[in-house]
Amino acid sequence: MISYEEVQKHVSADDCWVIIKGRVYDVTNFIALHPGGRQAILSHAGKEVTELFSMLHPSDALENLPPEACLGLVDPNTVPAQENVLTESDLQRRAAREIMPPAQSMMLLRDFEEWAQRVLSETAWAYYRSASDEEHTFMENQDAFRRYFFRPRVLVRDMSTGSTETTFMGIETSMPVFISPAAMAKLGHPLGEVNLTRAAGDWDIVQAISSNASCSVDEIFEASSEDQPLIFQLYLNKDRSQSETLIRKVEKLGARAIMFTVDTSWDSKRTLDSRAKAPTSADASSATVATLPVNRAISGYQDRNLTWDDIAFIRKNTKLPIIVKGIQSLEDVEMCVSHGVEGVVISNHGGRQADYAPAPIDILYEIRALRPELFEKTEIMIDGGIRCGADVVKAIALGAKAVGLGRPFLYANGTHGEEGVRRVMEILHEEITNTMRNIGANTIEQLKPEMVGPAGPWVGANRPPYIKQ
Amino acid sequence: MISYEEVQKHVSADDCWVIIKGRVYDVTNFIALHPGGRQAILSHAGKEVTELFSMLHPSDALENLPPEACLGLVDPNTVPAQENVLTESDLQRRAAREIMPPAQSMMLLRDFEEWAQRVLSETAWAYYRSASDEEHTFMENQDAFRRYFFRPRVLVRDMSTGSTETTFMGIETSMPVFISPAAMAKLGHPLGEVNLTRAAGDWDIVQAISSNASCSVDEIFEASSEDQPLIFQLYLNKDRSQSETLIRKVEKLGARAIMFTVDTSWDSKRTLDSRAKAPTSADASSATVATLPVNRAISGYQDRNLTWDDIAFIRKNTKLPIIVKGIQSLEDVEMCVSHGVEGVVISNHGGRQADYAPAPIDILYEIRALRPELFEKTEIMIDGGIRCGADVVKAIALGAKAVGLGRPFLYANGTHGEEGVRRVMEILHEEITNTMRNIGANTIEQLKPEMVGPAGPWVGANRPPYIKQ
Amino acid sequence: MISYEEVQKHVSADDCWVIIKGRVYDVTNFIALHPGGRQAILSHAGKEVTELFSMLHPSDALENLPPEACLGLVDPNTVPAQENVLTESDLQRRAAREIMPPAQSMMLLRDFEEWAQRVLSETAWAYYRSASDEEHTFMENQDAFRRYFFRPRVLVRDMSTGSTETTFMGIETSMPVFISPAAMAKLGHPLGEVNLTRAAGDWDIVQAISSNASCSVDEIFEASSEDQPLIFQLYLNKDRSQSETLIRKVEKLGARAIMFTVDTSWDSKRTLDSRAKAPTSADASSATVATLPVNRAISGYQDRNLTWDDIAFIRKNTKLPIIVKGIQSLEDVEMCVSHGVEGVVISNHGGRQADYAPAPIDILYEIRALRPELFEKTEIMIDGGIRCGADVVKAIALGAKAVGLGRPFLYANGTHGEEGVRRVMEILHEEITNTMRNIGANTIEQLKPEMVGPAGPWVGANRPPYIKQ
Amino acid sequence: MISYEEVQKHVSADDCWVIIKGRVYDVTNFIALHPGGRQAILSHAGKEVTELFSMLHPSDALENLPPEACLGLVDPNTVPAQENVLTESDLQRRAAREIMPPAQSMMLLRDFEEWAQRVLSETAWAYYRSASDEEHTFMENQDAFRRYFFRPRVLVRDMSTGSTETTFMGIETSMPVFISPAAMAKLGHPLGEVNLTRAAGDWDIVQAISSNASCSVDEIFEASSEDQPLIFQLYLNKDRSQSETLIRKVEKLGARAIMFTVDTSWDSKRTLDSRAKAPTSADASSATVATLPVNRAISGYQDRNLTWDDIAFIRKNTKLPIIVKGIQSLEDVEMCVSHGVEGVVISNHGGRQADYAPAPIDILYEIRALRPELFEKTEIMIDGGIRCGADVVKAIALGAKAVGLGRPFLYANGTHGEEGVRRVMEILHEEITNTMRNIGANTIEQLKPEMVGPAGPWVGANRPPYIKQ
Repeated sequence: MISYEEVQKHVSADDCWVIIKGRVYDVTNFIALHPGGRQAILSHAGKEVTELFSMLHPSDALENLPPEACLGLVDPNTVPAQENVLTESDLQRRAAREIMPPAQSMMLLRDFEEWAQRVLSETAWAYYRSASDEEHTFMENQDAFRRYFFRPRVLVRDMSTGSTETTFMGIETSMPVFISPAAMAKLGHPLGEVNLTRAAGDWDIVQAISSNASCSVDEIFEASSEDQPLIFQLYLNKDRSQSETLIRKVEKLGARAIMFTVDTSWDSKRTLDSRAKAPTSADASSATVATLPVNRAISGYQDRNLTWDDIAFIRKNTKLPIIVKGIQSLEDVEMCVSHGVEGVVISNHGGRQADYAPAPIDILYEIRALRPELFEKTEIMIDGGIRCGADVVKAIALGAKAVGLGRPFLYANGTHGEEGVRRVMEILHEEITNTMRNIGANTIEQLKPEMVGPAGPWVGANRPPYIKQ
Repeated sequence: MISYEEVQKHVSADDCWVIIKGRVYDVTNFIALHPGGRQAILSHAGKEVTELFSMLHPSDALENLPPEACLGLVDPNTVPAQENVLTESDLQRRAAREIMPPAQSMMLLRDFEEWAQRVLSETAWAYYRSASDEEHTFMENQDAFRRYFFRPRVLVRDMSTGSTETTFMGIETSMPVFISPAAMAKLGHPLGEVNLTRAAGDWDIVQAISSNASCSVDEIFEASSEDQPLIFQLYLNKDRSQSETLIRKVEKLGARAIMFTVDTSWDSKRTLDSRAKAPTSADASSATVATLPVNRAISGYQDRNLTWDDIAFIRKNTKLPIIVKGIQSLEDVEMCVSHGVEGVVISNHGGRQADYAPAPIDILYEIRALRPELFEKTEIMIDGGIRCGADVVKAIALGAKAVGLGRPFLYANGTHGEEGVRRVMEILHEEITNTMRNIGANTIEQLKPEMVGPAGPWVGANRPPYIKQ
Repeated sequence: MISYEEVQKHVSADDCWVIIKGRVYDVTNFIALHPGGRQAILSHAGKEVTELFSMLHPSDALENLPPEACLGLVDPNTVPAQENVLTESDLQRRAAREIMPPAQSMMLLRDFEEWAQRVLSETAWAYYRSASDEEHTFMENQDAFRRYFFRPRVLVRDMSTGSTETTFMGIETSMPVFISPAAMAKLGHPLGEVNLTRAAGDWDIVQAISSNASCSVDEIFEASSEDQPLIFQLYLNKDRSQSETLIRKVEKLGARAIMFTVDTSWDSKRTLDSRAKAPTSADASSATVATLPVNRAISGYQDRNLTWDDIAFIRKNTKLPIIVKGIQSLEDVEMCVSHGVEGVVISNHGGRQADYAPAPIDILYEIRALRPELFEKTEIMIDGGIRCGADVVKAIALGAKAVGLGRPFLYANGTHGEEGVRRVMEILHEEITNTMRNIGANTIEQLKPEMVGPAGPWVGANRPPYIKQ
Repeated sequence: MISYEEVQKHVSADDCWVIIKGRVYDVTNFIALHPGGRQAILSHAGKEVTELFSMLHPSDALENLPPEACLGLVDPNTVPAQENVLTESDLQRRAAREIMPPAQSMMLLRDFEEWAQRVLSETAWAYYRSASDEEHTFMENQDAFRRYFFRPRVLVRDMSTGSTETTFMGIETSMPVFISPAAMAKLGHPLGEVNLTRAAGDWDIVQAISSNASCSVDEIFEASSEDQPLIFQLYLNKDRSQSETLIRKVEKLGARAIMFTVDTSWDSKRTLDSRAKAPTSADASSATVATLPVNRAISGYQDRNLTWDDIAFIRKNTKLPIIVKGIQSLEDVEMCVSHGVEGVVISNHGGRQADYAPAPIDILYEIRALRPELFEKTEIMIDGGIRCGADVVKAIALGAKAVGLGRPFLYANGTHGEEGVRRVMEILHEEITNTMRNIGANTIEQLKPEMVGPAGPWVGANRPPYIKQ
């Protein structure tokens, strides 16, 4: 039994202990290896970090430490009682959760967001919702969808039958929607990403597993049903051999594609996330001990040296199709085509990287208007700003093969767990079905570019180039 | 005399009783025939449904049941006293009604809407006001009108005389306005659609009777004055023989045209309507017993298999002119012309079907700009978003023969009954007259496309194509 | 001495008495002659109307009655004490006036508007501020100015000298601003239009006298300084002989031009004005006795039969230059030119006639872009929506010879009387001077079209046609 | 010792004493020489003005008076005790400062603005924040940036290295940002501009010293580190010989360029600043004694006769490069080129001169679209409306060599002093770095016009002219 007092003597980079689940660990040698970076450990040296550790790591994360790192049990009598004083905002969250309606009463995806803001912990809300700098791209992603309208056709066919089923990347799914790789589902619900996996399995839609998932890939694959299609999202590690190992592992586990994220080769300031960790005047004296925002705490291992050559690196290590996620311009779709990738996700990381990156739906429209042949050369997906079925249908009609959503699933997981995630899928399915049939299509194939275009009359400069005058 | 306890034993799909106006009915065999669908009955099995029944059905609706369905009187002493506890929002509505000004003090159509929101029952307001999904089309319908402005001409003629009289579909009316077929007027006022009929008769304007009117067509025709022009709006029944019967019946009653609605071959989520029926956290335990939104409760019989061939079906069964309502694109106006229909209503069902369907006034502008010859080939009407006389005049100047309004009449019926409906007509007549004469026309024929166009200076790309540079 | 009781016996159209300034008048024969129309008198039959009468009429208005109409003095002891109960809103207005800063502390024209809303009587505010129907044109008039920006030039000349002096309609003035003919200044201040006249005389700017001024033309000319330029605004009377008499009278008094208003040949609904007179639920029982809005009460004599031939009628009766006010389209400016009028005011009556009439500054821009030669053929002025010096400079740079303001002068007259009116002129002069010199002009002649154009970069479709690429 | 009573006898233009730091000065002869103008002194005649004097003047300003102007000490017992009554708004400011978070917790530049509004004195806030007339240009400067978006490129290069270093006007700096010449830093912090100098020295960025700085140029140069680049901003004096002396002095002190401000040859109304000095109703009686807004109090000496010939005047007196600040049109950039100036700052004086002057970023876009060759002929900078790193990167990508910020530095100086100024630089550096690397550039040279353009899809009229279709 080690006393808490003793632990406090080991709080430097050269000698660093922490307490997790009643045990004392010497993590000195692990600091440099920590995927989330040095600072993420050092700012908690000497502390009891069980709760934080659990929310940010898969349950098997301690296995990354050598056995001798565990120094023994902490003497619980010596650990100062964490005064579990509930703040006023904690009490408000608790009260909100008590009056929160059941998942079935959520009518729009935005309903989950509204409740998530009221019931999630400040850390969770700040991490999920945050976007970079002044959040213009975050807002633009959604606003841009509002600038496209349909031209519904009537009496075209029997609407009593039909479906939203489709195929993308060779995978059959119940609708052209996938779960974008979003990290840290445990911040919202203790079961984490596994809730997403189970709901996706039942609904037969694709989940893209984040490299930074708070459940391990093993846990997620274990939670999946037979033949459930899972895609693995990859951040390349500074140490490429670890990336090789990881790619081979997920291929073996049964991943159906590698989604290579290319828009985070550099940091960004996630404003809300940073604010949540910044000292207020009340604790200004402790301002020198900075706490890292979640975003920084989990991304330390990612390589900043990413180039088009890395496509070949990945190709060399897997037979799986490669999807490049994070394309933000027509020109880079062309680059993807010339590098032979099987799929592209036009995405600005949900407004979390370059503020003032363009809305994905606008880039999709540019491609349809100026380079429609690209849709034949690779499979184009988008994510960012999708909040209703009509958004999905707009993207598909313009030529996307599927669209990804991140935050809505995380919000619903945070408010209602797996049942919430299912409800998001149910709402999307209903809205997509309604939108499709009400504009004249009962299959995905019947959605055509001429069904969608800019708001306002399609006259003169406002007429989509792909529609005859 | 049947006891309430006994009734409670018959609450399944195989054995279903309900209590209406003091009588017990066995509706088991009628469930499958119910125009509003099975679920609408089953969710009320065993209950006293008099109030709900009366608001949703014509007074002769019980005649659809065979005589033997009436099992006898319920023993009133056994029926549990409905605790008529007024909720806080009931009390607010009551208080609002007490201070509501008289109809003559309503100056704008929006004034009725404002008061309707304050005094109507939650069910009525939610059904009338609701629109689909995120309600973008509902808002766009109105916003789009705000993007068109006039170019008034002065000193053109003696304005001391003139009129708003016109003819459309061969019917002479006092102004180019008709009552769009809107259902469930009884939700707002116990006399229901009959209020609309009487006001329309006095004002000499056309009423289109909804297939889902809460008064029967017989009641409505009975309330009409001699030669009062009524149009019948038709949803085709899954059982076409019933549609045949209905068409022949209304022709015989004296309907002047059949308005065939084509934009509801599939469902939509009416958000407010759905929210009004969704469980809140307070009654989450009863969440399994879903109550249908009004929209779903009344539309179960409608056929989802609608195609252009149905024009011929209707034509075969009537000599009346056919108006196709629910056209949302220039291309489908062309389809209507090629199918020889006498009239078209450009409409997105008041924003209640495809969210992000375009505003009707924008489609009208597209036709004027790109296919003006279509105005010669069929009579084009619009509805959706019209809230003032200027909106009417814009549509007529661009080429519409008439415009329809739905919600404003229902709101006024709900606040002030027949007097409210008359006041809406009076306001519209005054505003149309004022607008016409102040822009240089004292007859409908003098309204010309060059009098209206986009907001802002008509220079360069913003100049309407139909006006010489 | 006539008793109040006796007066109450004469309250019909056939026998109508009223009490003004302690005297009883039989106005039966005058009802049909009343310039403000029959209803305006009848709704006050039998009443003590001194206060209302004084606010709406010049002080010599009683001279229009024959001497025998005066029946004698009312017995003051019989007149029921008007319970001078101050309403809550009266008390708020009084309190607001007590804390109102002096005129010199008003920094923007909008400051006067803000205080006017707080301190004016409901009738005055409603009449001044009101606009037609939903008030879109009222707002557009101002919003449109916000869509034009300058391209200031620097280092062009010595700015230590310069002036805002200019000439329009042959009149030299201190700045290109005139007082638009706005009626009923007495509603805001007991001295009425005379305050405007005195301030205009000192500042050397033109006042256009409304046909419906609450001071008589004699009073106004009397208040003017020697050679002070006054223009007379003319509504043609149904009885043209009265118009002839009036034209000859004002020419003799020294008016410098006739401003013929052509945009009110028909009524409009002034929404605020109408609301102020509409019954609320509290007095619904008295709803049958309608009180006319001010607008209606004063306009009954105006002819609705106005055509281009009336230019010749006016020309026949005066040698003064003719200005046509109320032109709202490029085409009607051309009509004015072809009818040889000396001046044109592009105006939509401050948004008080056709709602959705275009903003005058936009029509001015259309002329500059499409028919610049019109500026050489007649003098073009505008009014509507001008609220700062930059607005004035924009119009002048595009080609207007002068601009008119109405409401800002009425608001300032209502808040601070003549001193307020002077302060409006001072603010305008300062803002015009600052704007001119800061964009590179120190005389009116140096203002050029290329100094102003649409907001945003002048690239492609947004580049003004009158500026070389 | 002179009594306060005696001082009160000398309060006219012919005989004017004031009390500064316990001494009585006869400033009669200095009134005409006062750089801030006569009125600025006269309105304080006879008063104790130490605090005001210190905030508005460098510490050596009293040396401008001849020794005999000091008449002796004031008898402190005779000076009326200034009742230091704290107003409610003083108390609010004090309370706000107590809860203000440390500089490190400010995440966006806007955070400093928000706190500055809460904690600065009314005079300081009003002077810093104020803009001219209705403040449209002030808002447009910022809004315009929001209408430009990036097209980020991915996988282009190793992002692990790179820098924001650049060179403009021959000066190497750590990022393409300079401190715009903004006056009166002492209003926000007693150390004044010296705080800016020290922070700029550490961060290796250029400070432009305002002619109206509240620290003297000697003080500022003294506070600078060796070789720290400082630019001197010049208002030409009505007495050009004083300008000559000044130019030669600052060249000798080591200034690296002369920034000649050309957009203030005439006054403007700074609305907030004026309001702060205007009488309220409470002190209306004293309204005759006007207090000058800060803007007027400090600018009396500036010459209003500025022309292109003045470039030659400056050139004659210095070998330093000349930057012309205050250019607001493409045409005047061409004028600068033809006059051979080394640099241009497109600026509208932060919206403080001509209201409705265009946003600098829009003018920059015009040049890029229409006259790209100008970027080769002079160095173009902009200031106005920049509030984040993305704004900086947009300007640089379009062709600007550097951008200036004024208010953000003054706000931060006012809230947190030198530490606040440093934090602004830190935030900008982080945001610029993040933006650059996330759009595909790791050096300033790699920023290209095709990376930035208007919001929305780049299709048709919205496609930047400098990007191939």
